[in-house]
Amino acid sequence: MTTLSTRLLSATYLCQLHFPLEQQKSTTPAAPASAAPAASAASAADPASELLAQIGEQSTKVRGLKSNKADKAVIQEEVAALLELKAKYKDLTGEDPAPTNASKKNFKRSAAAKTQDQKFQLKNPKGMRDYGPEKMAVRELVFKRIVEVFKRHGAVTIDTPVMELKETLTGKYGEDSKLIYDLADQGGELLALRYDLTVPFARYVAMNSIKQIKRYHIARVYRRDQPSVTTGRYREFYQCDIDIAGQFNGKMMPDAECVKIVTEVLDGLKLGDYVVKVNNRKLLDGIFAVCGVPEASFRAICSAVDKLDKQPWNEVKAEMVDEKGLPAESADRIGEYVQLRAGTGANFSMPNADLIARLKSIEELYANPMAKEGIDEMEKLLDYCRMMNCEHRVSFDCSLARGLDYYTGVIYEAVFVGKRVGSVAGGGRYDNLVGMFDAKGRKVPCVGVSLGVERLFTIMEEQAKEAGETFRETATQVLVASGQGMDKERLRYCTRLWEAQIGAVTSFKLKPRLLDQFQQCETEQIPLCLVLGPDELERGVVKLRVMSTREEIEVPDAEMEAVVRAKLAEL
Amino acid sequence: MTTLSTRLLSATYLCQLHFPLEQQKSTTPAAPASAAPAASAASAADPASELLAQIGEQSTKVRGLKSNKADKAVIQEEVAALLELKAKYKDLTGEDPAPTNASKKNFKRSAAAKTQDQKFQLKNPKGMRDYGPEKMAVRELVFKRIVEVFKRHGAVTIDTPVMELKETLTGKYGEDSKLIYDLADQGGELLALRYDLTVPFARYVAMNSIKQIKRYHIARVYRRDQPSVTTGRYREFYQCDIDIAGQFNGKMMPDAECVKIVTEVLDGLKLGDYVVKVNNRKLLDGIFAVCGVPEASFRAICSAVDKLDKQPWNEVKAEMVDEKGLPAESADRIGEYVQLRAGTGANFSMPNADLIARLKSIEELYANPMAKEGIDEMEKLLDYCRMMNCEHRVSFDCSLARGLDYYTGVIYEAVFVGKRVGSVAGGGRYDNLVGMFDAKGRKVPCVGVSLGVERLFTIMEEQAKEAGETFRETATQVLVASGQGMDKERLRYCTRLWEAQIGAVTSFKLKPRLLDQFQQCETEQIPLCLVLGPDELERGVVKLRVMSTREEIEVPDAEMEAVVRAKLAEL
Repeated sequence: MTTLSTRLLSATYLCQLHFPLEQQKSTTPAAPASAAPAASAASAADPASELLAQIGEQSTKVRGLKSNKADKAVIQEEVAALLELKAKYKDLTGEDPAPTNASKKNFKRSAAAKTQDQKFQLKNPKGMRDYGPEKMAVRELVFKRIVEVFKRHGAVTIDTPVMELKETLTGKYGEDSKLIYDLADQGGELLALRYDLTVPFARYVAMNSIKQIKRYHIARVYRRDQPSVTTGRYREFYQCDIDIAGQFNGKMMPDAECVKIVTEVLDGLKLGDYVVKVNNRKLLDGIFAVCGVPEASFRAICSAVDKLDKQPWNEVKAEMVDEKGLPAESADRIGEYVQLRAGTGANFSMPNADLIARLKSIEELYANPMAKEGIDEMEKLLDYCRMMNCEHRVSFDCSLARGLDYYTGVIYEAVFVGKRVGSVAGGGRYDNLVGMFDAKGRKVPCVGVSLGVERLFTIMEEQAKEAGETFRETATQVLVASGQGMDKERLRYCTRLWEAQIGAVTSFKLKPRLLDQFQQCETEQIPLCLVLGPDELERGVVKLRVMSTREEIEVPDAEMEAVVRAKLAEL
Repeated sequence: MTTLSTRLLSATYLCQLHFPLEQQKSTTPAAPASAAPAASAASAADPASELLAQIGEQSTKVRGLKSNKADKAVIQEEVAALLELKAKYKDLTGEDPAPTNASKKNFKRSAAAKTQDQKFQLKNPKGMRDYGPEKMAVRELVFKRIVEVFKRHGAVTIDTPVMELKETLTGKYGEDSKLIYDLADQGGELLALRYDLTVPFARYVAMNSIKQIKRYHIARVYRRDQPSVTTGRYREFYQCDIDIAGQFNGKMMPDAECVKIVTEVLDGLKLGDYVVKVNNRKLLDGIFAVCGVPEASFRAICSAVDKLDKQPWNEVKAEMVDEKGLPAESADRIGEYVQLRAGTGANFSMPNADLIARLKSIEELYANPMAKEGIDEMEKLLDYCRMMNCEHRVSFDCSLARGLDYYTGVIYEAVFVGKRVGSVAGGGRYDNLVGMFDAKGRKVPCVGVSLGVERLFTIMEEQAKEAGETFRETATQVLVASGQGMDKERLRYCTRLWEAQIGAVTSFKLKPRLLDQFQQCETEQIPLCLVLGPDELERGVVKLRVMSTREEIEVPDAEMEAVVRAKLAEL
C-alpha cells in the first residue's frame, strides 16, 4: 500500500517536470486519493500528537504537585497516569515520548549541544531493540536448552539468507503479506526480508531436491507490524523451528514427535503448567462440510473459528453469519462441535480417548471421508503421544484452528495455564508448501513446530525477577588483582589461567585499588580473586581469595592452576 | 542510480495512464537517458550474454566429443574449459548459467512444466547462499571454539537489530558507503542493513551511555558488493567481533589482549602457521609528517600504503606521486619506512624489539610527537604481548595501514603463512567513533578485532576434505530399530533414551527393513543400534549393536539406559 502510494507520488512529481504549468494544474488534482494518508500522518490532529499534548499537560500537573509537596499518594496516582500515557504513546509510535520543552530539565542547554542533537536521532529502527548482556544471557540459556532437545531428536540445522526473492514469499501469507519488509530496488532483484522460517525451509527443500530431513532453524524474522511494548510485539524477533519433511507411511510418528519435542522443551525450562492443544484441519473441514458450509468458505469459516480463544462464541457466530453469510443454523451446528475439548486433569470434563470415541459415534460425521481421516489421524497421534509419555500434556481441542492457510492436517498450539502470554508454540502439518516451489509440483509432506522463544525469554526474565535472581553475563572465574600496580605480572597470571582453560580478567588500570577489584568480583559474581603482591611473588607464592567465604589461602606459585581448579570444583 | 532509473521508468509508465495517446508519443522520447542502462542490461552484447554464448558453444563441443567417444584426456580438457567458463559466468552474475536449449537434456518437456518453470526462479538472492547441515556443523564448531576464548576473557555478548537508521551508517565507511543495502521506504524511517558490527557497537555504547564494556558479537552483515564464488566474497556473511571500550590508563593492555585473543583462537583451531601484523596509525601519521606529506593528505597516502600487500612498491609510489600529487622524494622516503618489518623466525631479518630501537634511533622521527607516541605505544604493546606468551606470533610491520578511516592507534591484521586466503582477522583502536554518536561528543575509546570467520570455515572445510574427514551433522547416539514394525515400541524406547538425555532416532516407516536401519547408522555415523524384537521383549531383553565392531549384546530391559551410557563412554 504505502509503497504504491509513494510511487504514485513520485510519478506525479516527475510528471510535473515534463509538462508546462497549466497542465500541471489539471494533473495535480488527479493525484490518487491513496496518497493522502501519507501527508496527514504529520498533522497535529493525529493520535500521537494528541497523546503528546496530554503527556505535556500531565507532566505539568505532576511537577506542580511535587513542587507544592502534595500528598505522596496523590502524586503517585498522577505519576501512574503519566506513565500510562507514555506507554500508550510508545505503543502507538514505538518511541519514547520526547520531553516537551516545558518538562526538559536542562532547558537552557548550549546552542551547540542542540545543534548536535539535531544532527541525528540516536535510536533503533521502530519496533526493534538491542539485546544487552543480561538479556543475552537469558537468551543463550533458553537456546542452549532448546538445541539440546532438538539434537537429542537427531535434528540437523541449516541457515538461509535473511532475505528471499520477493516472489518466494508472495502468495504464502494471505493478508499478512502486507507486513513483509521490502528492500530497496537497487538495480538488481526484488528482495524482501524473511517473514518466517517455514517458507524459506520449503524453498530450501525444493531447491535442493531433498526427500527427507529433520532440521531445526533458529533465526530472526521480520514483520512490519505495529509494534507494541506492552504485548511484546516487535518487528524483529527470533523464531525457533523444528520441522520434519518426508513421505513416511508411519505418518503420525513425526507429528507426534513434534508434540513430544514441545513438551521436552517446556518441561526442561520449568516455566509452569501448560497444555499442548491439538486438532486436525481435515476434521475441521469435515465438520464444516457436515454442517453445510460450502467448500469455498472453509478457510474463511476456519479463520473465524481461530478467534474463539480471544472472542466469545456469539461474536464468532456473528462473524460467520453476518460477515461470511453462513446460515445461522450451520453456525450453531459448528458451535456445538468446536466446543468439544478433551484432556487430562481438572480443567477437562473428558479424556482425549473419550472425545475420539464420541466423534466416531457421530455417524454423520464419521461417514464424511475428510472427518474420518482427521479423527483416525488424531487417534493415532494420541496413541503415539501415549507411547512417548506426553499424552497427559495434550488437549484434543476442536476449536483450535490456527491462522495460516497452508496447514493440511494436524495442528498444534501450546499455552501456559493461567498465564496471559498467548501461545508459546504453534505449528502443524503442511503437505503442499514444498510442491509450490517445485517446477513439477512434486510434494514433500512436512510437519513442524515453531517455539515462541521471545515469550519464553520474557517469562524467564519475569520469574527470575520475582525470585530476585539475576543471570550472570560473563563466565569469568578468576579476577587477577594486585594492590601495587604490577600490570605485567597480572597479565602474566591471566595468561597462565587462560592457557589452563580458566576464565580470567584483570583491571586495565595501571594502579587499581584492591577494594575496587574485590568490588568488581562481587558485582560480576566472579568467585575467585588471585591477589598478587611483590612480597608473595618473591617468596614464590600467590594469595587466592574465595569471594563467597572471604577465605584467603597462600598457594605455591607452581600449583596455582591446580588449586584454582580445585576451588572452582568445590564451589 | 538504478533505483532512480526504475522510478523514472514507472513514472513514465504512470504518466501514460493519465494522458491521451498523442501526448504519450511526445513524452516517451523525453524519458531520461539514465533509464537506458537498465534496458541495455538485457542486450546480447553484454559480457554475461557473451559468456553464455561461449558456454553454449563449448557444451556442443563437449557433447560432440563424447558422442564420438573421443580420447578421455581430450574430453577432460574441454570439460575443464567449460567449467571455467561456467565459473566465470557465476562470478559475473552470481548465478549458475541456465542451460541453453541445445544443451537441455530434457528438451521436450511438457508445456505445463515449462509454464511452471516460468512461474518463478527458485534461487537465493544474488551473492547469498544457504548453509546446509554439513556447513553448519563446521560453523558451529568454529563458533564454539571462538566463543570459548571470548568467554575465557570475561567478555559479555550483545545483539543489535540487523538494520540501523540509514543516518547511523552515513559517513562511517568512506567510499564503501555505496555498498550499503537500503530498505524500501515503506512510509516510515529510512533504514539500511548493517554493514559491519563496529558502527552498531559504537551506536549501542553511545545510546546506552556505557562507560566500559568488553563485548563480543557474532552476526551477519550485508554488503552490496560484486559477489565472487572463487574468492568467497558474498553479500551476506558472518562477522565475529570482540571489542573493549573504556578509558583506561593501562591503555595498551586491552590492545595487547586483542592480539592474545586472536592467537588463542587461531592456535585453538589448528589451521597452520600465522602471523599477527601490528602497526600504529600514530606512527604512520608521524612518518607521513616527517616525509613531508601535508596533513590533509594523510588518509589518502595511508590508503595507498594499504595496497602494499597486493601491489609492488613502484605501483604504490606511482599512485602517491601521479594520482595524489606527492613529490617523488617524499614518496621515496615513505618507501624506506614502510619496508621496515620485524618479527620472530626465518621470515624476518630483525626481532620486534630491534625495530623499536631502530625507530627510536631515527632522531627526526622520534622528535615528532605523533611518531613518538606511536613508537612508545608499540613498545608497550610488544611488552604486554611478551607477558602474554604471544609476541612470537607478532610482526611489527610498518607497511600495515588498514583501509578504514576510523582507526586512531594500534592496528592489527592476521594472515596465514603460505595460504592465499587474505587476512583472517583485522582490527585496531578507534577512539573517536562513539563520540560521533554522542550528542555532546563524549568519547569512549575503543579497541577491537574482527575475525574473518567465513575464511576460517573455508580453510577448515578444505583441510577436512584433504584429510578425507567429514563433519558429523547430527548428535544422534542410538538408532532404535526393529525388523518387525513395532512402531509404538520403537517410540517408547526412544522416549526412554531421550529422558535419559541420550540422542535417539527411529524410522518413521511402519515396517522398516533391518538392513536399511543399519545402513542409516553407517551413513549418519550413529554409533549404537538398539534392536527390538518381539521374542526379546517377551524375554525382557533388548539387543544392542555396536556399529563399529558389529558386536551385539543382549541387555536386560531395565538396564538398557545404563548399558547404552557405558558403551557410549567406551567409544
